[in-house]
Formats: sequence, structure tokens, C-alpha cells
Amino acid sequence: MSRILVVGSTALDSVETPSGKADNALGGSAFYFSAAASLLSPVSLVGVIGGDFPDEEIQFLRERGVDMAGLEVVADGKTFRWGGRYHENMNDRDTLFTELNVFEQFKPVIPAEQQDSELLFLANIQPDLQLSVLDQMSGPRLVITDTMNLWIDIALEGLKKVIARTDILIVNDEESRMITGEGNSLRGARALQAMGPKVVIVKKGEHGALMVGGEGELFSVPAYPLEQVVDPTGAGDSFAGGFVGSLARDGAQDWTALRRAMTWGSAMASYCVQGFSVRALRDLDQQKALARYEDFRRLAGIPEPRR
Amino acid sequence: MSRILVVGSTALDSVETPSGKADNALGGSAFYFSAAASLLSPVSLVGVIGGDFPDEEIQFLRERGVDMAGLEVVADGKTFRWGGRYHENMNDRDTLFTELNVFEQFKPVIPAEQQDSELLFLANIQPDLQLSVLDQMSGPRLVITDTMNLWIDIALEGLKKVIARTDILIVNDEESRMITGEGNSLRGARALQAMGPKVVIVKKGEHGALMVGGEGELFSVPAYPLEQVVDPTGAGDSFAGGFVGSLARDGAQDWTALRRAMTWGSAMASYCVQGFSVRALRDLDQQKALARYEDFRRLAGIPEPRR
Repeated sequence: MSRILVVGSTALDSVETPSGKADNALGGSAFYFSAAASLLSPVSLVGVIGGDFPDEEIQFLRERGVDMAGLEVVADGKTFRWGGRYHENMNDRDTLFTELNVFEQFKPVIPAEQQDSELLFLANIQPDLQLSVLDQMSGPRLVITDTMNLWIDIALEGLKKVIARTDILIVNDEESRMITGEGNSLRGARALQAMGPKVVIVKKGEHGALMVGGEGELFSVPAYPLEQVVDPTGAGDSFAGGFVGSLARDGAQDWTALRRAMTWGSAMASYCVQGFSVRALRDLDQQKALARYEDFRRLAGIPEPRR
Repeated sequence: MSRILVVGSTALDSVETPSGKADNALGGSAFYFSAAASLLSPVSLVGVIGGDFPDEEIQFLRERGVDMAGLEVVADGKTFRWGGRYHENMNDRDTLFTELNVFEQFKPVIPAEQQDSELLFLANIQPDLQLSVLDQMSGPRLVITDTMNLWIDIALEGLKKVIARTDILIVNDEESRMITGEGNSLRGARALQAMGPKVVIVKKGEHGALMVGGEGELFSVPAYPLEQVVDPTGAGDSFAGGFVGSLARDGAQDWTALRRAMTWGSAMASYCVQGFSVRALRDLDQQKALARYEDFRRLAGIPEPRR
């Protein structure tokens, strides 16, 4: 078992979808990631919240062994808040408000005992902050990076520096196209590999995800077919949580471990979207999660050919 | 091994894509289907061509054992011709011309010795013609049906009658949405099952395909990641060819046989789009096809979980 450090956003979200709404619910890339990863492996989290943060919201993460020594509390500040409304198709959304609050001045400080973590997940935050985290780390480690369209638009040079220091890059198909100019997933992934990462994962939402490794290493995992998506927020972060959590649990990074991790990522994402905020992940246990993993094996299992 | 009968369009296509162009090349749903299915099983084809048809174009199908006794030749007529141009993204296309010619008066006549074929593939043609084929058949058989957006727009009532008499329906995600009003693939497939078919396959182009059967029967196969698509024409018909060809070869229709068939469908479609017209399928042999099937098993194979 390897140790995971995640650095990312920690927020309170207010979300409306065709299925309903949730106000001031747990959100942010690092919380979603931790909710998923902690089902598979211990996690240490670095982020920032305000004095207004309802501590009971993260009690379940503590119970799952998430180390929050690196979660800075600005007593006289307000927690980062985001509000959004999803369209009927669940793929498009409008941002209703963004209040950065304490996140605006966030300077991640990695506790000394986390600086040699074997697995570092750079969740979606400003690329310069991701770089400052990399600079605080010591020893060999596997760096897994996520980002978003905003940073590609306004901080591409910084993002490219992060990508150059990344081992496994997780993007969605639109982000890949924005960075590389390639509409073809495979060519896009190859172009991203040329920027540094040995492995590139292209997420395709309801269409699953593709992982591209070395020569001849291609792996595709479907999304779990769901009759209803309640709230897509955090699906990507939950995917990353399942992915990195599985690598940590395996303590290995070979192609088999990577394919297993992709499946755990998809399983966690499929649970995430079945409830608002982190609720479905909070209610999940190892046994139910394993059952979903086995569902994926049935869903994607190709029989031997007749010869 | 079961016997396959396919009834569909038989055409000469002129296609332009970002990769180049082909003029008056073999096209039409029944020819694409046969080019793929004949690699796995004998096929009998029913269609119509004009006296202008270059017979050498289908010599390779004869060599693969395709029975063309039901291919009507209207000596003083012209073959159905279609011309199209694909956009840069390869998903959208403009129809440049459609000359129905002998296809306008096509009344499929099923030769007596084919009327009891165990597997009937109703390729994409006018629903009333599909119904007339069903009325000519005798004995128990498995009916697999394809269609297109045009018939959903202008002949939905006839199409619904065909669907009611169909065992396995193959549609793409857009067609499913048009027929059922459901944007969600799984709910769309369930709504289509309520119209008759026991099994519904929803094709998603570059995102693979989903098969929905009975309780707990879900199967997802990815599309093969290709760096270049030369010509997407006929991918759906080739998918159907691999699918039905595999069912015929297995002589079985259980869930394992259906999953194997989905994989053969995807393998054939992935070859189809690597060349203009049926060229890549024509150049394919059983050994190369089997290698692609094995590529799919590597691409989609999920390792056992660690417990």
C-alpha cells in the first residue's frame, strides 16, 4: 500500500439538476477525490476552508482515515462556494456564481510528513499552485494530474510545466482537444504524451474513458449505463479518486494495475453521479463498491473467440 | 452454422473525405454487410442492380461464398448511386446526390430456397419493403433489423410494425432518441424493447456500442481507437455483418454468443473505416480479423479486483 497526497479545491456547492437541488453541500475536487479514494486506501488532503465550514460534513472522511492535517482553516474567512445549474442533457451547465473567498489566497503548504508521499494527485487547481506543490515534494513519486478548461484558456504555459512533470495525466476529450488541437482521442493522447506523461487518460463522460500507455498499450473502459444521473458534479474527481486509490492499494503501477485502477475510477464515478454532492460516495462501502467493480467486468467482458 | 439472408440496398457510392475520394465504388447496406459477414459465415443476398453495374466489384464476395441468386439485375436500368462528402470531424456529412434508379421500383423477391433461412438481416431499406420480406419468410427465424433517420422521419408507422416483428434491433444513439424521445441510451433501449425486440443494440460511433438484453444483461464494447478514419461509410452495416456473421458461425443466440457477436461487429466496423468503400474488408482475411478480435479483448479486458 502506497500513501496518497491530494491537493485541490475544497468547497461548498449549490447545484440544481433536473433531478432536484442541493445547497451548500460538500464539493471541490479534493473532497470528491478523497470520498472515492478513501474507500480503497488512506489519503492525506491539503486544501483550505473558512470558519463557516460545517465540520460535520467531513466527519465521514475522517472515519475513513483521511488525514486532514493539511486542511488549513481560515477562521475569519469564508469557504469557496460554487453554484451551478445543469441543463436537461446533464452535459451542459451554467455557473450561477463563484465566490473564491479563502481560496483566492490559497498557498498550499505540504506538511513535512507528507512531502515524501509515493502518490501525488494534483487535483484541478491553478497550475502555479500545482507547481508549488511539486516543488515542496521530496523523493521519487508518481504524479497524477487533473486540470480544467479554465486553466487551458488562461494559464496554458504554467499548465504545460505541470504536464512536463506529470507521470499520468487525466483530461477529458474537450481538454485534450483544447491543449493539442487534435479532435481524435488517440492522436490527442499521443500529443499529450509527447509533452511528458508516460500515461494519458482521456475521459469521455457517459462514453467511458481511454487510457494510452506505451507501445501497444491501449485500454478502454465503458461508463456504467445508468437510467438516471442525479448530479454529474465531481464525476471526474471521483474517477481520479478510484484510479489513484486503486494504484495505492495495489502498490504497483504496471499495466495490469493501471487497468484495474481505470475500472475503480469508473466504478466510483458511476456511484458519484447517482446522488447530489458526495452523498452516494459517502453511503458507499467496500462491499457495494466491489460489487460495482464486478458489474464492470460483466459489462465489458469479451468472450473468447471461436476458432 | 446457421444460414444468413440479407435484404438491403446495393449501390455505387462516390465519397469524399478529408483522406481522399472514391468514385463509383461498391456501396449500399447489403454489400457492406456481406463483405463483413462473409468472413465468418455463408451469406445469401437479395438486392437490385442495373445493367451498368461493374460485376468485377463483387467477384470477391462470390469467392467468399456469398450467394447472389437473389441479386436482381435490371439490364436496361441504372444502379442506385449515392454521393456524399464528409466534414473534417468525420461525423457529419453532406449528401451531394441520390439517384435511386432501379432501387426506386425495388420489390424484394426472396428465392424459395432462402425463405427458411435461420437468420434474417433486414438492412436499412424502406420499412414497407422490410415488411414484405418478413411476409415471404417461412419457419422460425431470428430477425435482426437496421434502419435510418430518413424512415423514422417519413415512415415511422411502418417502421414500428417492423420493430414489433424484430428479435434484435440495431440503431444508433440518434435513431434511438428520434424513435423514443429518450436521450439516455439505457432508457431508450428499454423503450425500444417495449416495442418488441428482446435485444437492442445502440451504436455510438467512435464511442462503441451498448447491448441491452434481459434482466441484468448489459454489454458495452468500445470502438477500436484509430489514429485515422479514412471513410466512415458502411461502418454500421459492417458492424451488423460481423454481428450476424458471428451468430451464424456460433449457431447460438445465448448471451455469450451475443457478446461475441458484438465484438465481431466492432472488429469489422473498425476495419471498414480504414479504407474507402469495402476495400479494407475486401483485403481482410480470417487471420487478420481474428487478430483484431484479440486486440479488442486486450483493449477491454478488466483484471480481477484485489480483495
